[in-house]
Amino acid sequence: MRAMLKGIAASDGVACGRVYRFVEPDLTVKKRTITNLDYELNRFHQALEAAVSEVETIETRATKSLGADGAQVFSAHRAMLQDPEVIAATETKIKVEHLNAEVAFATVMNDFAQSFLATDNTLIKERTSDVHDVVKRVTAHLLGVTLPNLALLKEPVVVVTHDLNPSDTVSAASKYILGFVTDLGGRTSHSSILARSLNIPAVVGTQTGTQTLMDGDSVIVNGSTGSVVSDPDQAELDTAKQAMLDRITNMKRLATLRNHTTTSRDGVGVTLAANMGTASDIPNVLQNGAEAVGLMRTEFLYMDSEQLPTEDEQFATYRQVLEKLAPRPVVIRTLDIGGDKPLPYLHQKQEANPFLGARAIRQSLAHQAIFRSQLRALLRASAYGNLRIMFPMIATLDEFRQAKAIYDDERSKLTTARVPLGKIKVGMMVEVPAAALLADRFAHEVDFMSIGTNDLIGYTMAADRTNQDVSYLYQPYHPAILRLVQRIITAGHTAGIPVAMCGEMAGDPIAVPLLLGMGLDEFSMGAGSILKTRQLISQLNAKDLQGLVESAVNSADTSQDVITMVQAAVPDLTQA
Amino acid sequence: MRAMLKGIAASDGVACGRVYRFVEPDLTVKKRTITNLDYELNRFHQALEAAVSEVETIETRATKSLGADGAQVFSAHRAMLQDPEVIAATETKIKVEHLNAEVAFATVMNDFAQSFLATDNTLIKERTSDVHDVVKRVTAHLLGVTLPNLALLKEPVVVVTHDLNPSDTVSAASKYILGFVTDLGGRTSHSSILARSLNIPAVVGTQTGTQTLMDGDSVIVNGSTGSVVSDPDQAELDTAKQAMLDRITNMKRLATLRNHTTTSRDGVGVTLAANMGTASDIPNVLQNGAEAVGLMRTEFLYMDSEQLPTEDEQFATYRQVLEKLAPRPVVIRTLDIGGDKPLPYLHQKQEANPFLGARAIRQSLAHQAIFRSQLRALLRASAYGNLRIMFPMIATLDEFRQAKAIYDDERSKLTTARVPLGKIKVGMMVEVPAAALLADRFAHEVDFMSIGTNDLIGYTMAADRTNQDVSYLYQPYHPAILRLVQRIITAGHTAGIPVAMCGEMAGDPIAVPLLLGMGLDEFSMGAGSILKTRQLISQLNAKDLQGLVESAVNSADTSQDVITMVQAAVPDLTQA
Repeated sequence: MRAMLKGIAASDGVACGRVYRFVEPDLTVKKRTITNLDYELNRFHQALEAAVSEVETIETRATKSLGADGAQVFSAHRAMLQDPEVIAATETKIKVEHLNAEVAFATVMNDFAQSFLATDNTLIKERTSDVHDVVKRVTAHLLGVTLPNLALLKEPVVVVTHDLNPSDTVSAASKYILGFVTDLGGRTSHSSILARSLNIPAVVGTQTGTQTLMDGDSVIVNGSTGSVVSDPDQAELDTAKQAMLDRITNMKRLATLRNHTTTSRDGVGVTLAANMGTASDIPNVLQNGAEAVGLMRTEFLYMDSEQLPTEDEQFATYRQVLEKLAPRPVVIRTLDIGGDKPLPYLHQKQEANPFLGARAIRQSLAHQAIFRSQLRALLRASAYGNLRIMFPMIATLDEFRQAKAIYDDERSKLTTARVPLGKIKVGMMVEVPAAALLADRFAHEVDFMSIGTNDLIGYTMAADRTNQDVSYLYQPYHPAILRLVQRIITAGHTAGIPVAMCGEMAGDPIAVPLLLGMGLDEFSMGAGSILKTRQLISQLNAKDLQGLVESAVNSADTSQDVITMVQAAVPDLTQA
Repeated sequence: MRAMLKGIAASDGVACGRVYRFVEPDLTVKKRTITNLDYELNRFHQALEAAVSEVETIETRATKSLGADGAQVFSAHRAMLQDPEVIAATETKIKVEHLNAEVAFATVMNDFAQSFLATDNTLIKERTSDVHDVVKRVTAHLLGVTLPNLALLKEPVVVVTHDLNPSDTVSAASKYILGFVTDLGGRTSHSSILARSLNIPAVVGTQTGTQTLMDGDSVIVNGSTGSVVSDPDQAELDTAKQAMLDRITNMKRLATLRNHTTTSRDGVGVTLAANMGTASDIPNVLQNGAEAVGLMRTEFLYMDSEQLPTEDEQFATYRQVLEKLAPRPVVIRTLDIGGDKPLPYLHQKQEANPFLGARAIRQSLAHQAIFRSQLRALLRASAYGNLRIMFPMIATLDEFRQAKAIYDDERSKLTTARVPLGKIKVGMMVEVPAAALLADRFAHEVDFMSIGTNDLIGYTMAADRTNQDVSYLYQPYHPAILRLVQRIITAGHTAGIPVAMCGEMAGDPIAVPLLLGMGLDEFSMGAGSILKTRQLISQLNAKDLQGLVESAVNSADTSQDVITMVQAAVPDLTQA
């Protein structure tokens, strides 16, 4: 049935294909008393078999994309599904207690999970979540519903989902994903950032996508305009297919820029860097020709785990990233966690306004043991590549000095212990307005500054970008934001240190001419935007843009004024 | 028993006296079956009588301090307590159902409340909360516990409470309040602002004050150091009493400045204005020699009510304020409400970060009917005094233009209808960093600017001042804040419009020399700080302070650097 959905254009390009609903089905079950026991036992065994075969498929794919380590969890699932004790206990519950298979299996597995939780071994405790996954899979087969799994994709589809979570292993499946449609999210939500970094067209925030679109529906997703059309007519399909082909041609052309440096038409060189979240992003970073990593987040190391990662676990990850990306400089940001991204194993308070609460460096300074362990892991990893450490959410010089003193302390302890260390630069993220306003004073004490626009814009406009009622106030081109950015760049250059930007703004085609004109040294963005930005910069004349910057900063009243000025100055490049 | 409590110094001065615990007692009751009916009926009548006599006392006092209108609610209470139907119904429940008096009376009154709620008359519906008050009072007498009420104070006491709410009618009782001690709150919470505006020494945030201090305990409250001592020795008492006497002498001396204008030693004139919340603040504003009102909040008109105030109700309040304070200019701020100050009768969403959500002008532009009604009430009231209208939380010029267009529209409709209007100035509150950074552009379109430091500091430092974990980052003297303030003042003066400040910072003795040096035109503060500030300014040399401003803005790294610079520049005045 034809339907039109309007959402937020989150990642450029057009995709057309069949819908794959990545939506968890309703798995609630009722306890029933069974009379036909043979039928029930048969149902149970069929479901088990189907589950085993599914897990084997996932395991094979995961081994290919993530290596044996990444696939380990699935062999654990398989072992549980084939455990003779579990099977026997479930059969007994069906035969003796006349329970339906769903409830019988879940009860047996929950007892199993309880015995895990009772041990002191944290590795065993972690298995509890595996038990839940296994119960879900078997229940789905018993109920005859599909548990969607991107790793099971065999042909290209348009993924329609409520929202993507960092735990959804999308990257591994990306070659089968033509496009994304989500119910929730905005341009800067996780789903959008991921889609752009993978260069997959996406429309987010459609509200009703998962309700309107059914498995197998033919759809066209336009990630540039934010529209989704189901059951399109032939003319629409032809146009969309042509757009897809053009896009592929364009991406091939862009791919030739992969090993180039980045230089404006008049010869001004800048660095194009990638933002990354986990080590699994490394191939994508390299494929897109990043000259550096301007922001490696470390939150997922902490959030994907049910306990604090050990120093050695962290060291292994940091070392892998630095080694594989060497000799490229890699900026690793210390933990940016807080009320809005709580860790289940830390007792954090509920805060009325978590974005204005005890996040990031504030948490690190308040919980120094965690901070010191991360700094030691980073210091030890520094021997394996080109490391830069960045402190997030610095608001005052006192904070930077405290954090730096702790770093110096750990560094000198390791030096005394003759642990080999590399050359490290220590810098700050400028994302609190107070730090931006005082950038000239900070610039004397830090090795580099990186402008975190996502938060800087939010605080400067006093608008939570994840709140749909005020997201219109999240305005990267607002003259006030441009003034702050210019001030930071000037302050850095006056003090002789480089200035980077690692927010979404750095890869935005309207912002890029302004940033180039201001003299920004490094642009760090989702890997998927790098080649496009390299092409854009190669067509811009940096000197000419200084007049544009001058008027945008001094004479613009509103964001719209700025957009109009940029489009007038570089019409062909930014009017797409 | 001797105890020492440490809290936050919230309002200067020393108080010593007896503790009055202003803490709601536990009024939970259990249903019991009564055997001695006469005894129970007797208990009921005694409690009723005591409640009536108490309400009469409160009514008399309220009539004196608030006028007949303010006391009306208590005559309604009295009528309920003396209603023959209520009494007869309760007696029947005791005699026939053998219910205990507490439950019998509450049941009868609740049936009464239900019948109110069933009507369509909103005035009658509002009576529901009166029913609850009356039940509470009678229950307290039946249980033999005291329902504390500041209006019943007969002698001076130190009030110890959990926290003060805007609905606690403190002002009327203030002559019997020597000092405040609260469990919760910080320097900028409602309790603190109120204490300062009434010039009552206060220590807030003691955590355990209401648990440690008992009715009648002798205490010394030091609102300058944040300490509370119970059962002090004679030497401590003597020192405290001397401090109280000195303070009274000083206040008498300050009182001579009441009718003076405010001028620095070298002849620079500024305006000292008061912040106010409700019309009941008028006497306090006049007594403290305010030359203007720099901020009249309008939230309480909306929050004290169970429904939207009508245009006429608003008009009456605004007119009263403007008339009584004429010819002084009065800046009335349009509704600053949102997720953090929800209105029960508006369906507002729960927000993850209400301080960064749909507050103030954002709400007004989204709910234009409410905004237009407030603007009409303000316009109509303008004929009765010197009105200035201020829009809160302006972040973009678009918002100011939209709000102004709505104002112009309502204005021209009233003009067409030949409603008499006064001269009105329309300005903005500068409290969003984006607006502060773009003050030069705003200055061309507004009649005046007023710097709202409470929020401006919070956003600029990215710290929620009500969150104890990050309140150390709420730094009014941070050089970044000073830079923004200076920028706003300069922008206003370049465009030829006056610049005011209406946050707590305007009455802070460390900030005042800096603000005077920057050329701030109007300082608006809690009324209690006005005379002290007038005295301070009369001793300062504005021209000399420009060097101090220059170094604080350009060479200070931290808040502590700024404090040190101010204390070096004006040692005698700021080192208290």
